[in-house]
Amino acid sequence: MARAESIPRDKDNNYSEEQARRRRTFITEKTGAELPSLASYSIDPQVTQGNIENFIGCVQMPLGLAGPIHITGEHARGDFYIPMATTEGTLLASYSRGMRAISESGGVKTTVVKHSMQRAPVFLFADAMQAREFGAWLVSRFDAIKAAAETTTRSGKLFEIEQYPVANMLYTRFCYTTGDAAGQNMTSKATFAACEWIKANHPDQPRYILSGAIDTDKKHSAMNMIQTRGKRVIAEFTLKREVARDLLRIDTAQLYRYRQIAAVGALQAGSAYSGAHAANGIAALFIATGQDAANVAESHGGITYGQLLENGDYYWSVTLPALICATHGGGTGLPSQRECLQILGCVGTGKADKLAEIIAAVVLAGDVSLTSAVLAGDWVSSHDALGRNR
Amino acid sequence: MARAESIPRDKDNNYSEEQARRRRTFITEKTGAELPSLASYSIDPQVTQGNIENFIGCVQMPLGLAGPIHITGEHARGDFYIPMATTEGTLLASYSRGMRAISESGGVKTTVVKHSMQRAPVFLFADAMQAREFGAWLVSRFDAIKAAAETTTRSGKLFEIEQYPVANMLYTRFCYTTGDAAGQNMTSKATFAACEWIKANHPDQPRYILSGAIDTDKKHSAMNMIQTRGKRVIAEFTLKREVARDLLRIDTAQLYRYRQIAAVGALQAGSAYSGAHAANGIAALFIATGQDAANVAESHGGITYGQLLENGDYYWSVTLPALICATHGGGTGLPSQRECLQILGCVGTGKADKLAEIIAAVVLAGDVSLTSAVLAGDWVSSHDALGRNR
Amino acid sequence: MARAESIPRDKDNNYSEEQARRRRTFITEKTGAELPSLASYSIDPQVTQGNIENFIGCVQMPLGLAGPIHITGEHARGDFYIPMATTEGTLLASYSRGMRAISESGGVKTTVVKHSMQRAPVFLFADAMQAREFGAWLVSRFDAIKAAAETTTRSGKLFEIEQYPVANMLYTRFCYTTGDAAGQNMTSKATFAACEWIKANHPDQPRYILSGAIDTDKKHSAMNMIQTRGKRVIAEFTLKREVARDLLRIDTAQLYRYRQIAAVGALQAGSAYSGAHAANGIAALFIATGQDAANVAESHGGITYGQLLENGDYYWSVTLPALICATHGGGTGLPSQRECLQILGCVGTGKADKLAEIIAAVVLAGDVSLTSAVLAGDWVSSHDALGRNR
Amino acid sequence: MARAESIPRDKDNNYSEEQARRRRTFITEKTGAELPSLASYSIDPQVTQGNIENFIGCVQMPLGLAGPIHITGEHARGDFYIPMATTEGTLLASYSRGMRAISESGGVKTTVVKHSMQRAPVFLFADAMQAREFGAWLVSRFDAIKAAAETTTRSGKLFEIEQYPVANMLYTRFCYTTGDAAGQNMTSKATFAACEWIKANHPDQPRYILSGAIDTDKKHSAMNMIQTRGKRVIAEFTLKREVARDLLRIDTAQLYRYRQIAAVGALQAGSAYSGAHAANGIAALFIATGQDAANVAESHGGITYGQLLENGDYYWSVTLPALICATHGGGTGLPSQRECLQILGCVGTGKADKLAEIIAAVVLAGDVSLTSAVLAGDWVSSHDALGRNR
Repeated sequence: MARAESIPRDKDNNYSEEQARRRRTFITEKTGAELPSLASYSIDPQVTQGNIENFIGCVQMPLGLAGPIHITGEHARGDFYIPMATTEGTLLASYSRGMRAISESGGVKTTVVKHSMQRAPVFLFADAMQAREFGAWLVSRFDAIKAAAETTTRSGKLFEIEQYPVANMLYTRFCYTTGDAAGQNMTSKATFAACEWIKANHPDQPRYILSGAIDTDKKHSAMNMIQTRGKRVIAEFTLKREVARDLLRIDTAQLYRYRQIAAVGALQAGSAYSGAHAANGIAALFIATGQDAANVAESHGGITYGQLLENGDYYWSVTLPALICATHGGGTGLPSQRECLQILGCVGTGKADKLAEIIAAVVLAGDVSLTSAVLAGDWVSSHDALGRNR
Repeated sequence: MARAESIPRDKDNNYSEEQARRRRTFITEKTGAELPSLASYSIDPQVTQGNIENFIGCVQMPLGLAGPIHITGEHARGDFYIPMATTEGTLLASYSRGMRAISESGGVKTTVVKHSMQRAPVFLFADAMQAREFGAWLVSRFDAIKAAAETTTRSGKLFEIEQYPVANMLYTRFCYTTGDAAGQNMTSKATFAACEWIKANHPDQPRYILSGAIDTDKKHSAMNMIQTRGKRVIAEFTLKREVARDLLRIDTAQLYRYRQIAAVGALQAGSAYSGAHAANGIAALFIATGQDAANVAESHGGITYGQLLENGDYYWSVTLPALICATHGGGTGLPSQRECLQILGCVGTGKADKLAEIIAAVVLAGDVSLTSAVLAGDWVSSHDALGRNR
Repeated sequence: MARAESIPRDKDNNYSEEQARRRRTFITEKTGAELPSLASYSIDPQVTQGNIENFIGCVQMPLGLAGPIHITGEHARGDFYIPMATTEGTLLASYSRGMRAISESGGVKTTVVKHSMQRAPVFLFADAMQAREFGAWLVSRFDAIKAAAETTTRSGKLFEIEQYPVANMLYTRFCYTTGDAAGQNMTSKATFAACEWIKANHPDQPRYILSGAIDTDKKHSAMNMIQTRGKRVIAEFTLKREVARDLLRIDTAQLYRYRQIAAVGALQAGSAYSGAHAANGIAALFIATGQDAANVAESHGGITYGQLLENGDYYWSVTLPALICATHGGGTGLPSQRECLQILGCVGTGKADKLAEIIAAVVLAGDVSLTSAVLAGDWVSSHDALGRNR
Repeated sequence: MARAESIPRDKDNNYSEEQARRRRTFITEKTGAELPSLASYSIDPQVTQGNIENFIGCVQMPLGLAGPIHITGEHARGDFYIPMATTEGTLLASYSRGMRAISESGGVKTTVVKHSMQRAPVFLFADAMQAREFGAWLVSRFDAIKAAAETTTRSGKLFEIEQYPVANMLYTRFCYTTGDAAGQNMTSKATFAACEWIKANHPDQPRYILSGAIDTDKKHSAMNMIQTRGKRVIAEFTLKREVARDLLRIDTAQLYRYRQIAAVGALQAGSAYSGAHAANGIAALFIATGQDAANVAESHGGITYGQLLENGDYYWSVTLPALICATHGGGTGLPSQRECLQILGCVGTGKADKLAEIIAAVVLAGDVSLTSAVLAGDWVSSHDALGRNR
């Protein structure tokens, strides 16, 4: 078999406009595809170094503005306009409606209740007893291991090593706080350093693999739902009965009845999220603000909880146990993504929790709107009016 | 509380450049954020109608080229260069390495084995017996229900109504093939028509809600893993032992041993995907080709399966039971997204399965590379060389 | 290492009292354990042939009587006294209280909504395409395969072959109705016959393994919850508000609020059962009536669903999707187990669904009582009064 | 509706033989069922006080002897004959075969790696922030809370309070070691005392419910698999290739290939146990030794892990993360159950871990035998020979 031609690269000059053009020419020759829109970017290819390899241009992802939404969080406080990048018609209109229902009900409280990013090495032994004894040793040397891990990072702090013994192995999760970064790479490096320290200092020099797969990076998991990955964030508000009636055209008692039905559906289906559609809002905000869109996998999992109050108002909350977001690193420094962070007031040090709170608030708004639309029977008709006919 | 100002809208003119600018000015005034990069788009705002509301500009998402990868699928055949949109450094380099390992081993076979997109109405009754009898009635009237559903769509075909009785309700999944579209909206409309027909023709005029939450739209679920949502696609190849050794710097026997360890990790964690990181490749291809990025939630779930062969080669496969992708509708018609589809030869009628095969092949390539990197110990170092320091 | 001595056996005479005594003597010599209680059985060892090997005696499992409970099911109708075998103090008292609450509220409706027992062979192929084509062939030959399967059994009827393609394999579930038997062995034999027919009649003589592990025999699974294993049974009643108040000392509104909290707990924990404790009632009835106690694993999974009605009464239901029970085969013919079936009126042909309905009713009663006890704060104190101090 | 007659009770004399007879007469009159076998018990009804209410007699559950099995555990050491109570033919024969394969391979190592029994109160607040602050307070007062809990028990020791914040609630798990008891009631009482202390000492007197459902008592759960409930026990051995060939009639390489297939089946099905059938051995031992048979629900969950060694032998293990067993309390003191504990050398103080090790060893033996039978094709035929024709 003749080998297909390699994509052009030039080590010294790989992020130049010239190289990008050369690759576009190459792919046009190979496939016949003309790429005028991909080529119409305004950013300097140099800024993408560290974000992508073999850069050829930019996808122009439409960005719209939803809101305003009134947030009374710990870090996010005030009225926010939300930049959302999506190609799904109706989405912003629907989220905006939910934001209005929330704002008219007095706004949404948001709270980050836990931080924990992991790398999860597995240590291999001759038998379960050795693995158990190693586990005890890990506990006894925690301070030294923590010190070894933290030599590699300024912002990462190792606060716990969870242990899950199986067979002749010890699966672990090294749990960190990671400041304004998402921290997947930071925790890899720190945990690698920790493991090397362990290997050098434990009498048996235990073999390990840096991931035993229980970090469940880029995957939804029960582990993440239970133990948290990234940030565990809660958004909660009380939907006023008259706002439900006048704006959403539903009764809160009807909403509460449907909650029982949808909760049973979610349980029966083994659904990662027991509300309506966290992934829509998360994906749109992740793309807008330079987050890793693959983390929609973990971040979309969550739990809805509601209670009908005696006065007919409805307490409504979402808990996102594995929201991964950052205001530093990744795509957060790219020009258009940074502009979106600016719209949200999330540029600068110490803003990651604020961003997390905003995302949770947006997720709740989306659930308010879609759930109401399903109940009021205007779900299909609104897609007809605003969406592409698919 | 003073209400925050509304985002400017103009019904007659909402997708004009003028309106987009007016909104940018509005948000700059409100937040102080200057938006030169978001404003530097080349597409006509009119084309985003049906994709977004309150358009203000475009996020410039970096696009790179990975590959080539040799695919010998049913629909995708030949050498492909893969456009991937991401902000995560190292990703394309890593996928390219996996693609090379696959190509040098003879290429990857890809097969779509099932199509099934759903809307999942729940029907409400006085007791379980009535729900059971209604279920029998549904079976007896399937042809008429199918006809009613299909009045709303040319390409959607209802082929099954799954039934899941709980309490005094019948949860159902109306399952369709949807041609080149993802079909979430198509199936909503068709199922709404079917339900209205049922209500008009069943003696008891049963109450229903259009989603009982077991469609698990935009959510990973056990239901989707078992019953399929969108396309169920399989990619498989045999990694040559010498390619593993020379290119990936690992031994296939080592790989097979690690498969046992990672499979146990995935099981223990309750992980949605038992391989390395499907979500990365899926997210990057979804954004590039105008798919709904929120569907990363469902699509990233899957199963890895491998066997070490007697000659030392390693059979390696991924099965994606809920891959949602389209070559028609959504963002697939936007200029830069369409260019990416052109690069893949996926524009035109009857190309959705080809796209699905390519995505599955790419996912497998990503797993080949990352798994090998974890084992060979060069995972951390490669991120240091290519990624942003996070 | 000296090999430990074998347990005495005598092929011709293995189920004689003499052999049982010989084995008791043997074990007393080996361990010093005197076995007067185990030896005090009244049954003829011969009757245990087909139920056990190396018989040495009988465990005397205490049996109590709970109830009465008023059932208005399809098959179970009237007032039932429930024989329950357990060693857990408080259990019968608590279930009896729940039964009284149900009876005073007008009784419980019970309905078997689906029957499906499986054996799940996996078929192995060179690639996914061959597996897919084999799947189509299976559909086209269903009648012949069904005929082959049913040559081995009078009561088993094959009604569906579910297909779950993964990698180069086709996992299947051969689904049967099995009359009054639980049917695990019946379906093994029938499916073996079907597979041999397939092997003889398919051009490629496909390799298969009789269980690909998705029958999940003796295991809880999402598969069983979704697709049913054994019987899918629903019990439902409306708890009168005054019965709740006077007998259970709780308010139904309080109950409904707690339902939200417990449902979220169950979801968060990934719990197999979203109510209080199905396993207790199931285990006690299974042991009493000669069911396979290992099937508690599958049978205890289920879904609770409730709604507070406008008059303050509370609709309460349990759905057991994988209840495995029989009135024929297994231990159902043993003397004391058969007496328990007689108490329930479940001896004779066509009684398995009646038994299933009774079990579901009992499970609901147990949940009514325990849930109320947790809420009324008398959970701990009742265990103090009635249970062993553990 | 005429109320059905109550079961006879006599507070002063309820556990007398006279009362048992009176109830038997009552039920015979009501149902026509004659109960000679249930009435043929040798134990004094008085001994069942604390184990059952409304005692009417004993189910005679057949008991057989399996083994011997050679165990080289931490607590269980030597050759064991295993009393198993079941009504499922073939079960003991099959387990005995597995025990022989293990013994001939040198025996099985067993290790208890974690102890943790829980009660899981949920605390209710106005919002998530208050719940978070309460969580911090819990950590700061751990010693006092522990002291309050332990006033109620000699053997229970509170070692951790796990926290899982959701919405405006804090779900917790109070984790204890419980000595030789299973500890469900002990932990209820201790946690109740702890909660009352909290209510009295926290400035806000937080409302709580003693179970927020994440203890998942009598239910399988992801929570238990991850965090342990009861004992986390591991059994492991190396199956010699020649033992596999001569005794089990399979090749270890074939076994290893099948492991891949069954692991994928278990994952795809969302199975609680990834091996063959833990529940069978656990149920039979639980009934024999006076354990709570309902705990089969939790205890049967687990993970199989294997590796083919270079010499062709096969490392095989099971990990049971939620095994609940006791040598004190429950039914362990009843005469025939105590005799079974004597056979195992598990009577007296400090024997619970020994029992747990034996159970895990037995589970592994059962998997060895059944897995081999499935592969060697003699699964169906052995049931034909030994089991009842069902």
